[in-house]
Amino acid sequence: MKIVFLGTSAAVPTKERNTTSIYIVTTNGAYLFDAGEGLQKQLQIARLNPIKIKAVFISHMHFDHVLGLPGLLMTMALMNRKEPLTIVGTRKLFQFLKMLNEKFYMDLTFGVEFVEAHQGSVYENKEIKVVAFPTIHSTESYAYRIYEYKLKRKFYPEKALKLGIPRGPLWNKLQLGNSIILNGRKITPEMVSDPPPPPVSVSISGDTAYFDELIDFFKESDVLIYESTFSKELENKANEMLHSTSEQAALAALKSGVKLLVLYHFSERYKNTKLLEEEAKKIFPNTVAAKDFMCIKIEDNDISTIDNIEKCE
Amino acid sequence: MKIVFLGTSAAVPTKERNTTSIYIVTTNGAYLFDAGEGLQKQLQIARLNPIKIKAVFISHMHFDHVLGLPGLLMTMALMNRKEPLTIVGTRKLFQFLKMLNEKFYMDLTFGVEFVEAHQGSVYENKEIKVVAFPTIHSTESYAYRIYEYKLKRKFYPEKALKLGIPRGPLWNKLQLGNSIILNGRKITPEMVSDPPPPPVSVSISGDTAYFDELIDFFKESDVLIYESTFSKELENKANEMLHSTSEQAALAALKSGVKLLVLYHFSERYKNTKLLEEEAKKIFPNTVAAKDFMCIKIEDNDISTIDNIEKCE
Repeated sequence: MKIVFLGTSAAVPTKERNTTSIYIVTTNGAYLFDAGEGLQKQLQIARLNPIKIKAVFISHMHFDHVLGLPGLLMTMALMNRKEPLTIVGTRKLFQFLKMLNEKFYMDLTFGVEFVEAHQGSVYENKEIKVVAFPTIHSTESYAYRIYEYKLKRKFYPEKALKLGIPRGPLWNKLQLGNSIILNGRKITPEMVSDPPPPPVSVSISGDTAYFDELIDFFKESDVLIYESTFSKELENKANEMLHSTSEQAALAALKSGVKLLVLYHFSERYKNTKLLEEEAKKIFPNTVAAKDFMCIKIEDNDISTIDNIEKCE
Repeated sequence: MKIVFLGTSAAVPTKERNTTSIYIVTTNGAYLFDAGEGLQKQLQIARLNPIKIKAVFISHMHFDHVLGLPGLLMTMALMNRKEPLTIVGTRKLFQFLKMLNEKFYMDLTFGVEFVEAHQGSVYENKEIKVVAFPTIHSTESYAYRIYEYKLKRKFYPEKALKLGIPRGPLWNKLQLGNSIILNGRKITPEMVSDPPPPPVSVSISGDTAYFDELIDFFKESDVLIYESTFSKELENKANEMLHSTSEQAALAALKSGVKLLVLYHFSERYKNTKLLEEEAKKIFPNTVAAKDFMCIKIEDNDISTIDNIEKCE
């Protein structure tokens, strides 16, 4: 799995930071979490193909998280997309898109399946599952957690050879969890491999005040991407505006036992996010402040942070 | 007057080109023509202050010309703008903004005066006047022409001295077109100066097919900014889609007798716009292809093209 940050700014963009958007690449697809204005250009700069996006998850209907969506849909239509697109979000988002489509003739070339966000599973296919949890913010808002199933099991060649299965494509099938028929006999993956490893999971807070129930939702994620609108100095302001500080983000990471914390959604007042990163690191050392075009690669049990998507192959 | 190109791409942005937006700076204000997605970030990069914008003119309700507007309004509100903003556009634009405001609580801190675009004068203040003309496109669309009044007249010191007017602030007042009372006697600017020079004017085509009546509207503009979606090779496509080619842009410039032609609104297929510029130059030599952050300065009778807004003081 690869996580690409396409926007890391709260409310308004800065010269270096676009408004919020996170693009997650899996083996067979891509998934978008929030869609800030300017998203299309960010995709172009990152050389990411919007057609690959299978589903879009919008945390809430504040404009800095959603104004990039209509343009994205139009571009997909110009590219003659045929595959249906799933959009997960609040009822307000649905009304927004419906109005745009009805009044302004978006002429989409593909179907949109709208799923109203709610606590629990909101999207699932062979490869991934996404669950949602309501956060505390000034409008209905959701955190999301994406699980990517790891299909490749630990395989035992000696067991396979003993059963007379010839080395080659059949081994691959079994290792990926499929049963086979050999000389009229059914061989299941369990006979030659371990159960599949647990899925990789990434949690994304969206906009939220800090609260305990959210910690449970993030429990043992590989990566937690948590909003860090303000520094600890402005904790009162954060509480009042139902946002979080870098310290609260770190506390969430610590209590939920994640492997890596990534801060994002920074107020424009922070020209440099080093301060926020340092505040969080005092509580949760394995923290990094996201920047636009940063990439995080999760491979087997290794999580690496790469400065720029260009170097993230 | 300064013209800053904040977006020069048609339909979708490219890595180098944002969707359409032109920012015009006058002595006392700024005026925006179209508002493509990503506009706010372009303003940040160009270090232009959105608060200075007195009026926004939208050519038509295609998304590549308008998706930057809601974010711009929200940002103005976050900056606590108090001065009313005039927005000129079609009824569809008005419906779009009304819906956003009613359903999604934009919480604007300032009044918006909406003017429905129509043929003729659509905006006027002490400094400028903007007139509109309907173009031929797949949705209701307008070209705009902005006139900046030049207040400073040619002044004759000897005439002023003869009338006993002392050198100093009174001279300035008269030169800027104001009458004064001196020892009970009214002195008008005409008594000591020439009439004011003709206004500087800039025409902007918006999206349009080529047609003759539009030429009259552009007549003798100082600068004509004309869409050049396609090269002459794709003239059939341009005609069919109600857009123009670089050659048609040049023909419009030649026939309307403008001083400078600026091409903009390029299809993403043109990685490099040199070809379009060269095609136009064969018909109208004083042509330049706009690029993002290019600046055109009109000072007295001098028009200069500056590569980047940073060098355009």
